[in-house]
Amino acid sequence: MTSRLSAPRRQALFAQLAELFGDRISAADLTLQHHAQDEGYHRAGAPDFVAWPASTEEVSKAVALCAAARCPVVPWGAGTSLEGNGLASHGGLCLDLSRMTEVIGVEAQDLSATVQAGVRREQLNAELKGTGLYFPIDPGADATLGGMAATRASGTNAVKYGTMRGNVLSCTVVMADGSVVHTAQRAPKSSAGYDLTGLMVGSEGTLGVITELTVRLYPLPEAVVALVCPFASIDGAVQAVIAAIQLGLGAARIEFLDAPMMAALNLYAKTAHPEQPTLFVEFHGSPDAVPVQAARFEDFIGEFGGRVAEKAALPEDRSALWKARHNALYAARALRPGARAVITDVCVPISRLADCLLQTRADLDASSLTATIVGHVGDGNFHCLILVDPDDHAQVAEAEALHQAMARRAIGMNGTCTGEHGVGLGKRELLVEELGSAVPVMAAIKAALDPLGILNPGKILIAPGA
Amino acid sequence: MTSRLSAPRRQALFAQLAELFGDRISAADLTLQHHAQDEGYHRAGAPDFVAWPASTEEVSKAVALCAAARCPVVPWGAGTSLEGNGLASHGGLCLDLSRMTEVIGVEAQDLSATVQAGVRREQLNAELKGTGLYFPIDPGADATLGGMAATRASGTNAVKYGTMRGNVLSCTVVMADGSVVHTAQRAPKSSAGYDLTGLMVGSEGTLGVITELTVRLYPLPEAVVALVCPFASIDGAVQAVIAAIQLGLGAARIEFLDAPMMAALNLYAKTAHPEQPTLFVEFHGSPDAVPVQAARFEDFIGEFGGRVAEKAALPEDRSALWKARHNALYAARALRPGARAVITDVCVPISRLADCLLQTRADLDASSLTATIVGHVGDGNFHCLILVDPDDHAQVAEAEALHQAMARRAIGMNGTCTGEHGVGLGKRELLVEELGSAVPVMAAIKAALDPLGILNPGKILIAPGA
Repeated sequence: MTSRLSAPRRQALFAQLAELFGDRISAADLTLQHHAQDEGYHRAGAPDFVAWPASTEEVSKAVALCAAARCPVVPWGAGTSLEGNGLASHGGLCLDLSRMTEVIGVEAQDLSATVQAGVRREQLNAELKGTGLYFPIDPGADATLGGMAATRASGTNAVKYGTMRGNVLSCTVVMADGSVVHTAQRAPKSSAGYDLTGLMVGSEGTLGVITELTVRLYPLPEAVVALVCPFASIDGAVQAVIAAIQLGLGAARIEFLDAPMMAALNLYAKTAHPEQPTLFVEFHGSPDAVPVQAARFEDFIGEFGGRVAEKAALPEDRSALWKARHNALYAARALRPGARAVITDVCVPISRLADCLLQTRADLDASSLTATIVGHVGDGNFHCLILVDPDDHAQVAEAEALHQAMARRAIGMNGTCTGEHGVGLGKRELLVEELGSAVPVMAAIKAALDPLGILNPGKILIAPGA
Repeated sequence: MTSRLSAPRRQALFAQLAELFGDRISAADLTLQHHAQDEGYHRAGAPDFVAWPASTEEVSKAVALCAAARCPVVPWGAGTSLEGNGLASHGGLCLDLSRMTEVIGVEAQDLSATVQAGVRREQLNAELKGTGLYFPIDPGADATLGGMAATRASGTNAVKYGTMRGNVLSCTVVMADGSVVHTAQRAPKSSAGYDLTGLMVGSEGTLGVITELTVRLYPLPEAVVALVCPFASIDGAVQAVIAAIQLGLGAARIEFLDAPMMAALNLYAKTAHPEQPTLFVEFHGSPDAVPVQAARFEDFIGEFGGRVAEKAALPEDRSALWKARHNALYAARALRPGARAVITDVCVPISRLADCLLQTRADLDASSLTATIVGHVGDGNFHCLILVDPDDHAQVAEAEALHQAMARRAIGMNGTCTGEHGVGLGKRELLVEELGSAVPVMAAIKAALDPLGILNPGKILIAPGA
């Protein structure tokens, strides 16, 4: 178990790292504090220093120095995590990869791009302009691709395009001793030994530091239509989703927003959407196919109490719509100025989604807190945004109790406590409840690949002796 | 390193196992020989005994007994592997899972099914009749789903549906000490810790014995059209594939067969296909979309020297077509009665596919051996079927040299030596050439999860001291 460095060891290591990074390392209080808070509500202390590497080689050297000093190494991307995944709860070196922004190559014929870990998804898509290709995985936040890989992120497009699990072809990883490993070649598929790419994706920096990755790209759909579909009830909306998936109606995005969430969006963006349980649905395809799909969906939802209130085919109209969806967190927070959100992240088999959502909404209604629900329901995944004053312990405790109960309900339904945000600090006990016998296997892998326990200690697994 | 058991230890263990399995264990020579040969050309000795477990619990008890006796445990499915993945090269207990054929549950609303590892893909699809769902992953052979997971199989449908990597939601695994681990819940996606499901898929029984698994199902496409498209040249066919993928023409299957392969099929099945480089292409979708897609493809291939020679929309016509494709191995073997095939399995980035295929065909033409090429070119994956008399060492050596050269060429093109057959016995050295620094990481994981080295020893990794 790695513990905080003593002052003399910290000074000695800082001197070594400063030789490597020059003015790209800092121990200034403001910098440390800036790296002690992600978009979530967890508070876990600050790193001892922050460095901004420019290359895999620099990360490798830094990790080797930290290994020799038994100093924790905590990778940092855009700071948009929600579960404290990148907080230096044991101090140490925060490796801020946000300056590793090189798009190393776009392999257009192969539908892939190779990037440094600090490239953000919007940057990549901007650089892809003119190629006819794009990277669709969209967690909402403009996160770094390295961070998205590390937390196995997904978001609104996963119904059609999957999650980071399926969209990382290979990565370059700095291991706990500073060695550099390429997990796979760039072939579209492979059976060449253990799937180290898949093991690194979702490992939250605890098994290695992802410094470069090759991601899949997709042809830009020729035509896209987005629909806003209010429903008479939550149940109706979810039953429509289940039926649509089973019939293979082929939506690329199926997002759910409950009535309080729609009200919050209207307030935040001065819009006038119906304040009902609502699906935002999008179809991607050829110009002849997409209108047919959308019309079919429109016919189909009538029997579930739904209708199409808005239809957007032009890029600017669709952008406005999805911008509203992506502002959900900020819109919710604006309901209670100064609030932070405790965000649940359950994902259940689709057959249990209606039950899970209805019981969850009832829990929220019975609580003293303000909360909205938004979700990637095409995947069985939804989030409650439960607003709290982070300094009000009673509120935080009530929100955490709600969160725990919801996670347990999902686990009881053969679902998971985290569909896409990761375990981080916040869900380590829940992981044990969820996967039980699998957790010691994870711990054995962690011990084998990071025997000194320096890589992002205290995340995912409750460290022995902690 | 596990070695063959001494006679007294073998007898003692057999007695213990016989108590567990009753008449479902055998050490009869014929049985052992039957489990000493897969569909490939490797010869590696026989197991000491073969047992047919009925449940995860029995596998667990058997593995615990073997662990205590330091006896190798080698899982066996349908025996359709090609790289000796299931051969007991160090003797020990062959766990033949082919009687674990229970479909435990079909979760139709969730588009998943949970099965015992010995269920074969055709059995599963037969049991799904009437649900409107199917399991599309199709490696050709009627393999067990456990075996397909263990080798990360794919086949003709991977262009649209992916490989076993993306289609196993969770598995039940018996670990090296006999403990039972469930790798994941049944949620459509998850960020709950390390992806143990993904680690087990493709691990070829070296990290655990997969006894049950939950796989994704898909709505049966409402309409399907298959096309047979001869081309003037290999290059034209491959360029058409690249362009079709980049334009997102949306084929579900894109299979390539070279002219010698088409000639062999004609000979074998008494058909009269044009004996040219040929694509078998299939589109899945709605009744209005599929004919449009097929017509678009037909227009499109003209400029690449291709045409549609045959179009099949009726199920019986399509079945006949794919049966022909699936008979490729037998048709090739029939060219040289008594022959076995050395089968290459390279997969390269699509941009390198034309180069790779053309150079490969030139190598084959320059050799003394008969060989055909068939491939899942939509994935960059193709196979040479190089016919040899397995008792003719010179022929085997020539085929192996060709195979090595082809694999090295693919590796040099940022591809893999194995797209879907796995490493097994045959590609352990090539794995090191391909992934270098990643192989010690795999070895560390193997040592952590199987410290006694009893699980399918000698596969994927060259065991220390071997």
